[in-house]
Amino acid sequence: MNVALCGAGVVGGGVLSIISSLPNTPFIVTKVLVRDIHKERDFPLPTSASYTTDWKECVQDVDLVIELIGGTTLAKDIVFTALRNNIHVVTANKALIAAHMTELEEILATSTGSLGYEASTGGGIPIIRSLQTSIISSDKVTSVAGILNGTTNFMLSKMAAEGCSYNDCLKEAQSLGFAEADPTADVEGHDARAKICVLARLALGVSIPEAAISCTGISSLTTDDFNYAKTLNSTIKLVGTARKVKLTNFLGNVSETVQAFVTPCICPMNGIIANVNGATNVVQIVSESLGTSHLLGAGAGRFPTANSVVADMQAINNNLISTAFPVPLNNEIIQDPDYTARFYIRLNVKDQTGIIMMAGELCHANDVSIHAVLQDPISDSTNVPFVITTEMCRKSQVEKFAKSCSELEWCLGLPLVMPIIES
Amino acid sequence: MNVALCGAGVVGGGVLSIISSLPNTPFIVTKVLVRDIHKERDFPLPTSASYTTDWKECVQDVDLVIELIGGTTLAKDIVFTALRNNIHVVTANKALIAAHMTELEEILATSTGSLGYEASTGGGIPIIRSLQTSIISSDKVTSVAGILNGTTNFMLSKMAAEGCSYNDCLKEAQSLGFAEADPTADVEGHDARAKICVLARLALGVSIPEAAISCTGISSLTTDDFNYAKTLNSTIKLVGTARKVKLTNFLGNVSETVQAFVTPCICPMNGIIANVNGATNVVQIVSESLGTSHLLGAGAGRFPTANSVVADMQAINNNLISTAFPVPLNNEIIQDPDYTARFYIRLNVKDQTGIIMMAGELCHANDVSIHAVLQDPISDSTNVPFVITTEMCRKSQVEKFAKSCSELEWCLGLPLVMPIIES
Repeated sequence: MNVALCGAGVVGGGVLSIISSLPNTPFIVTKVLVRDIHKERDFPLPTSASYTTDWKECVQDVDLVIELIGGTTLAKDIVFTALRNNIHVVTANKALIAAHMTELEEILATSTGSLGYEASTGGGIPIIRSLQTSIISSDKVTSVAGILNGTTNFMLSKMAAEGCSYNDCLKEAQSLGFAEADPTADVEGHDARAKICVLARLALGVSIPEAAISCTGISSLTTDDFNYAKTLNSTIKLVGTARKVKLTNFLGNVSETVQAFVTPCICPMNGIIANVNGATNVVQIVSESLGTSHLLGAGAGRFPTANSVVADMQAINNNLISTAFPVPLNNEIIQDPDYTARFYIRLNVKDQTGIIMMAGELCHANDVSIHAVLQDPISDSTNVPFVITTEMCRKSQVEKFAKSCSELEWCLGLPLVMPIIES
Repeated sequence: MNVALCGAGVVGGGVLSIISSLPNTPFIVTKVLVRDIHKERDFPLPTSASYTTDWKECVQDVDLVIELIGGTTLAKDIVFTALRNNIHVVTANKALIAAHMTELEEILATSTGSLGYEASTGGGIPIIRSLQTSIISSDKVTSVAGILNGTTNFMLSKMAAEGCSYNDCLKEAQSLGFAEADPTADVEGHDARAKICVLARLALGVSIPEAAISCTGISSLTTDDFNYAKTLNSTIKLVGTARKVKLTNFLGNVSETVQAFVTPCICPMNGIIANVNGATNVVQIVSESLGTSHLLGAGAGRFPTANSVVADMQAINNNLISTAFPVPLNNEIIQDPDYTARFYIRLNVKDQTGIIMMAGELCHANDVSIHAVLQDPISDSTNVPFVITTEMCRKSQVEKFAKSCSELEWCLGLPLVMPIIES
């Protein structure tokens, strides 16, 4: 199989290294697309290959294209053109898959090329293939959720274990190369959102535009939140979720909806998700026959990601690659922009009498039922963090409550809201 | 696809139920092999099918045979004959796979039938397909380990959480249907051993006879062990392990060996394995590119197991089933009957002076280095449980030490030995 490698960075080098170590490798890399031919790299160019800066050379006269450029501009041209030319494509590009699933499905319908994208979601975790060939062909998934971003999990694990601040953890993650100079995509949850978008399509059969997925990052979390989480025998993780929920309207009609969101969550320590630390990712799947399953592994990094790329290449070479977007057994669902959960609400207030009472009244006014109130002894009466946990309610109710509080004189800023997950 | 179902018990009923719920199911069940045609069952016979008591009817005029009988006699006849007749086989039978992998490989080499055995190991966890198509085609596995038996994990979780005795937990597991009247296969580790045997072949490329896998069950564990494990911020799990280890002999020559064993282990609470409770199973894979991965899910039960069966059937129908026993990238390994670890040794002694000194001398004589000595305040001086934990050493050294101790007057029976795992 003649292969063009587009993008010769960290993962690309890993792919070349793994391919060269395969006994009787069926893959002959002929082209390597780079921006700068003269840049020094930490791997040798295979003798069969030549560098090129012209992407069009990579989508002809080859059997398979590996797309590791990222983004949705040049990468899109390469992937779309290759598939239209009946060339197989393997990509690690979650942004591209998330943004263009429907178009990719249309192109694949008339292409003899296959699309492998195991590396796009969950790095080294074989979640895409497991969903395609072990789960959705026989089972109905009701929920897919997980820690889908290694950078933020590294930071949150550190904040929980060492009590350090968000800013200190971010600086350390940046100095270790875990976080980029502009960490927005990671810390604001956009990276996790693209991945939950891919998983929602695959597991639940719904194409949700990324922009329609509610997304809250980790930058508002403080050491107070980790302390209160500990009081709740929990920790905080950034979790992406897509799940089917039955909603009953006021006429009693039941409709099946999907709720998709990315947000920091209070995760109980006796569950699996809370115990996944460092840069590790985890995907939790709840399905009718299997109940709850978890897949854990390296979410990023040169060799884990490269392994997923090469596994897809082998699957294509062995005719074992699945239809890219098989239709799940049950896919008649509409999207619910809101979601239900028990919630954790952290308010920072100026200490004065009657706050609990007023907060209680506002909860009542928004039909939010209080489960517990947590307040550590006050150390600074000008800024007292205290926490309300709620019974099951909708996020919109809690947000209305939070907004009402923020408009009162004693409340310092908008209260922080995050769901409490069960496991 | 015409299908014969051999065995219409718990899992068989689940398979029929899932097949009947598939939209446009490609599977037509024509034969159902049972011992007693007149026995009442908790599912309807498909209209396309008829019962038979003659297994030979099931291995002709069909495209696929589902073998859910278990054991290695009739099941072997059915599977072997079907494959020789170029009929696809899907089986949940770990005992058959473990005992006859080499013969199955030979038969498959000349058969146009495929073999799916996802349901044999890890119940609903897609570990077989993940190894076949996502891991060993591109990566080199160095270790596969996990909790592979739901019955014992249910019991150990209960012993840890509630402090109840082995016998009480066994009785409860039996009354709930988790454990059989004769629980030997579960509690002595034989079930887990068959599964680690299958995983060792698949992940590491070595066929180890089951009898050559060191196997210790859970029946000697006491509440003292769970208390001491807690002191070590750990719990106890029955773990099956198969791993590659480099051994250096006295001439300095390095050889790669595989160590395979099933034994209760001290598992630290900050790792994943310790947090897998109830009847859930987990498989941990360590490989060169991926590092450490875990797959968790239902290890047994009607629908989880049936789901793995139907997923294999779908994979066969979609031409997506892998070669049953692909050869891993690196498989020149010999077996090491021994293994290395840090160990937990619980001695029960009659209290008298000098015991720690004598135990220390025996450790020294066996080249076992002590890491810690744990002894709770004595409540009964005629039977004092105390624990020694060791530095890294070979199990044979620790067993020699334990045997030497047991021959002394103050030692009550053979000390209990189990390895301490790292995560």
